Amino acid sequence: MSKTLGVLGGMGPAATLDFLAKLQAATPIQREQDHLRVLVDINPKVPDRNVSDSDPGPVLAAMAAGLKNNGAQVLAIACNTAHAYASEVRASGLPLVDMLEAAGQAARAAGATQVGVLGTGLALSLYRDQFAHQGLEVVTLDDHEQVEFMALLYRVKKGALGQDSREAMAGLAHRLVGKGARAIVAGCTEAPLVLKAEDLAVPFIDATEVLARACVAACLAHDA
Amino acid sequence: MSKTLGVLGGMGPAATLDFLAKLQAATPIQREQDHLRVLVDINPKVPDRNVSDSDPGPVLAAMAAGLKNNGAQVLAIACNTAHAYASEVRASGLPLVDMLEAAGQAARAAGATQVGVLGTGLALSLYRDQFAHQGLEVVTLDDHEQVEFMALLYRVKKGALGQDSREAMAGLAHRLVGKGARAIVAGCTEAPLVLKAEDLAVPFIDATEVLARACVAACLAHDA
Repeated sequence: MSKTLGVLGGMGPAATLDFLAKLQAATPIQREQDHLRVLVDINPKVPDRNVSDSDPGPVLAAMAAGLKNNGAQVLAIACNTAHAYASEVRASGLPLVDMLEAAGQAARAAGATQVGVLGTGLALSLYRDQFAHQGLEVVTLDDHEQVEFMALLYRVKKGALGQDSREAMAGLAHRLVGKGARAIVAGCTEAPLVLKAEDLAVPFIDATEVLARACVAACLAHDA
Repeated sequence: MSKTLGVLGGMGPAATLDFLAKLQAATPIQREQDHLRVLVDINPKVPDRNVSDSDPGPVLAAMAAGLKNNGAQVLAIACNTAHAYASEVRASGLPLVDMLEAAGQAARAAGATQVGVLGTGLALSLYRDQFAHQGLEVVTLDDHEQVEFMALLYRVKKGALGQDSREAMAGLAHRLVGKGARAIVAGCTEAPLVLKAEDLAVPFIDATEVLARACVAACLAHDA
């Protein structure tokens, strides 16, 4: 019997559906009943992770506890930045499939050591810490480009999923390649809503998809 | 403050994501935090609604109770056929936004009185009862065409979302038009995964989309 996955979502809501679609695509099925049971809390009311005086920690802890109470056995957070509050989520007592760790493993598997990451300021600091443990160097945007990225991210959150956004995101990824990145991590769940592997000449690591695969593996793993 | 929606999903999993995407599209937002909070139980392990000796009722009742315990204030079932167990879901004490009733209202708004419904055998009997209350007549497929529909439905559930499925679904809808239907209800959540309004010369009522709009209205309604 596969384990039930609990998903802390809504950051943003469209990105959560992208994650769930990638989870379904990554699940080996013969029939509908072979899909994982997934409990999802799509909570767009989580305080903004990119505002200095907000504290999403207690809200995320409560979401994790609620998912556990309702039967979740393994947790995932469908937002890179919210991994800053991973310890509050782990306080539920359930294992958390770590999106950033999974992305680092994918980058290593792609043979890259210099890895460009598109993410919020908070996510980038998490990626630097995580990737240092995995022997990877994080390549980031210059400050003014990072401001462009954040503005683009908020446009995508409001539904700007067209060609303009795709080209803008690809332009930022190309800047990272120009600075030495040998792979690009979409380290913000809004990024792969517009950026696709074919936009890049280096390996594209979609942290959302990588997390989905890791969750399928965790939920299908046989108990020891 | 908007109400929290609880969704009984997973029947099938892809159809639940289609519902959630339509829910997001139907929600008026200025910023991400304006989206509804949605608790979703994607449970593909619900016993098959189309097998005579299965009893999904207790499972759906438990799902509804779990969603309520976790904070849901309004419920929806992202599956037409599973509305056969609406009373078990309503036993949770929460209001249920009824997909079939909403579809009937949409059919009446479209000015149709003879309405073709694409659905499972169990869903068709529910539609006949519901639509009779709304002064609508249900037009259904012949028995051998209904067998074709069910085979197509199970192919869609397994991921056959391409042009072949679309043409086959449109062909069945055209049969209903040939039998006098003046509107077509996609009365099975897998149908709108492949059938689109532009495939038809009569109004297309996507019960999934209609349910999404009704849920937004229910969750944004001010308390009296």
